[in-house]
Amino acid sequence: MELNIGIIGLGTVGSGVIESIEKNKNLFLKKYNIKINICGVSAKNKRKKRSFNINRYKWYKNPLDLINNPSIEIIVELIGGDSGLPLDIAIKTLTNKKNLITANKAMMAIHGKKLIDIAFKNSVNINYEASVAGGIPIINMLENSLLSDKVNLIYGILNGTSNYILTQMREKKISFDTALKEAQNLGFAELDPFDDISGNDAAYKLLLLSNLTFGLVSEIKDVYVEGITEIESIDLEMANKLGYSIILLGIAGIKNKLLQLRVHPCLVNNNSIIAKVKNELNTVIIEGDLTDKIVVVGKGAGKNPTASAVLSDIIGYRKIKKRNLLSNKKNTYLKIKKLTMADRKGKFYIRMSVVDSPGVLADITAFFKRQKISISTMFQLEKKYSKYVQLIFVTHLINEKQLILAIKKIEKLAKVKNKVKFIRIENSL
Amino acid sequence: MELNIGIIGLGTVGSGVIESIEKNKNLFLKKYNIKINICGVSAKNKRKKRSFNINRYKWYKNPLDLINNPSIEIIVELIGGDSGLPLDIAIKTLTNKKNLITANKAMMAIHGKKLIDIAFKNSVNINYEASVAGGIPIINMLENSLLSDKVNLIYGILNGTSNYILTQMREKKISFDTALKEAQNLGFAELDPFDDISGNDAAYKLLLLSNLTFGLVSEIKDVYVEGITEIESIDLEMANKLGYSIILLGIAGIKNKLLQLRVHPCLVNNNSIIAKVKNELNTVIIEGDLTDKIVVVGKGAGKNPTASAVLSDIIGYRKIKKRNLLSNKKNTYLKIKKLTMADRKGKFYIRMSVVDSPGVLADITAFFKRQKISISTMFQLEKKYSKYVQLIFVTHLINEKQLILAIKKIEKLAKVKNKVKFIRIENSL
Repeated sequence: MELNIGIIGLGTVGSGVIESIEKNKNLFLKKYNIKINICGVSAKNKRKKRSFNINRYKWYKNPLDLINNPSIEIIVELIGGDSGLPLDIAIKTLTNKKNLITANKAMMAIHGKKLIDIAFKNSVNINYEASVAGGIPIINMLENSLLSDKVNLIYGILNGTSNYILTQMREKKISFDTALKEAQNLGFAELDPFDDISGNDAAYKLLLLSNLTFGLVSEIKDVYVEGITEIESIDLEMANKLGYSIILLGIAGIKNKLLQLRVHPCLVNNNSIIAKVKNELNTVIIEGDLTDKIVVVGKGAGKNPTASAVLSDIIGYRKIKKRNLLSNKKNTYLKIKKLTMADRKGKFYIRMSVVDSPGVLADITAFFKRQKISISTMFQLEKKYSKYVQLIFVTHLINEKQLILAIKKIEKLAKVKNKVKFIRIENSL
Repeated sequence: MELNIGIIGLGTVGSGVIESIEKNKNLFLKKYNIKINICGVSAKNKRKKRSFNINRYKWYKNPLDLINNPSIEIIVELIGGDSGLPLDIAIKTLTNKKNLITANKAMMAIHGKKLIDIAFKNSVNINYEASVAGGIPIINMLENSLLSDKVNLIYGILNGTSNYILTQMREKKISFDTALKEAQNLGFAELDPFDDISGNDAAYKLLLLSNLTFGLVSEIKDVYVEGITEIESIDLEMANKLGYSIILLGIAGIKNKLLQLRVHPCLVNNNSIIAKVKNELNTVIIEGDLTDKIVVVGKGAGKNPTASAVLSDIIGYRKIKKRNLLSNKKNTYLKIKKLTMADRKGKFYIRMSVVDSPGVLADITAFFKRQKISISTMFQLEKKYSKYVQLIFVTHLINEKQLILAIKKIEKLAKVKNKVKFIRIENSL
């Protein structure tokens, strides 16, 4: 069986896909009876140094011309970016009744609903396994497994760069800036790390997971996003003292008929499996009413894991012909309200800088009591940090709104210096 | 779309499947546009107390008559057992050109190749997601993901009962017998626990994973099997002292073009994710050349997780129409030699009981040296155990043959009492 494809975007992932097809041609034929023909390629710059010989393939200066090639049945889009050229490519591919395979999480997060509609109308598929958690085949799991489960919670470590930085900060006791620089030197963070450390990248992926799980009911603006830039090494140290690790989690869950989507740093128990997911690894955890908890850990980025996901979409494309049409179209059944962060109940870690005066811990504790913030643990750090005494509190379950209100008042007290920091505790994950 | 099924075997899993279909009928219709009709049921005893009302369904005294019902297109076999009635049912189902869904690992392990051949000839499918690792959708992952990876290693904790017993022995410092009794009381072990604690159950599952990964090249007799009955709490304690946990692993791997299939207790590093997989949980780890390591953790048994896997096979059956035909038939490409345990190189934990005489540690060490068994760590336990002094050794990489030879000689020394125990160390997992 021949499979004629066109590849647009020849960066790290695109090169990885082509290398792998060149290397494993015979294996694919033997194992799956599939011969993959790369009928054309396109990218910004033909002359860029690449890991494969570009002259072996028909070059299209304009990628939209490649889509017009009538022999091609699959377009593999690996440019990235949420709009502009990649979106034009996606729309043209689908309206030309060709199948689209993409690793583009931003585009799928922002324009996925529209693109799936177009695909449905044109009886073609969009496959985007590579767009979430790289080598972890989470989209396949959500589309073809746990079909009878009511999944009420899906969450995980969805950004390898942030996880790498937090792991290094924790293990080497280094600052955020030092860890970021190290990550950049090692290729675990990009020169412009904004999307990763701001939580935006994780938010895109979380939205895709949520829409696959709960139906196409959310948009990117529904995701609460907070990155890791405010985490200081003292927080990792204090968390550890309390038996926790700090990780950046993406969480999509339904509770009391309210859906919540949030990406932010969390304290998780040191004994949980998720706390063992270190450095650039990703993890996704699905909680279904029948299967209970399923944890998947793997490489969330990088040339080979991402290329592997793209290739599974290519090789598996015939097998799953009508799959997406069914699941993507039908899973819009769920109408659901959203929970705001302010209305969320949780436990919190709080750190504040105060002047070194007798009874300050007692004063703040009394203040919390008046504000009806119930505290389960508190301590004062022996050594000063940035000139001030550090007080650490852990709350019982309280409303976030209530906490923020209390913090605003506390910040006005003369003894309290700097901003009061709080990090959410996720005990039940 | 209507799906007419017959269910044979109404024990825990069968009841779970029926309950779930009754409960979620509307959900399946809404979400997947699938209406599941249970056209008939059969089991040994109609009058047994069950969690659903048996009178709602057409009862077939003889399950083979149920297969003859022309309106049924899927037979769900949930009796269990490697031959006899379940095998007759399977063969008749397939030769009648009906699809078979089963949770029967023993039958699939022993007769899988033959059954897949029959299915292929009759253009029908066998789906058996529930037969390996319960709620973990590992068969879907192996059939539909990592399609371009060369997987050289797949391994995991495949028996929840053994893992439960070992976890309890470690954490509560109790004996094997006490832990087994506790597991039986809590329903984590059956009254006749032989299949679980002997490693046989894990061996069936490992064989299925191996044949899905490496092609249908192995039989159950190719799996080396050793259970957990010889593990004593002192071994768990000593392992912990060395930084290890003892778990029962199933390992299928290709190294130097040799395939090896083995189920036995192993020492694994306490820091590894696998050491965090406690009690009745299962885990499967796949190592591909592109995706690197993927770890999946979940419930490996129990009514709901297993029913969930069966239901995913039922609901997904139309989607995957030709899937198994393709993958099962084509993955016989690999011809490969097998490695025997004796020829395997590894590191080993060794414990022996010796009489309390001066210089005994030095004597044994000198003996090992003469036998060219290179030792990396050794110590003598302060307290005696079963009347004797305990010596613990950890070897460097050596051939198992060489070790067994040396142990035979050591056991003949007058100072050495009882059998010398050794457990394989898996450092690289």
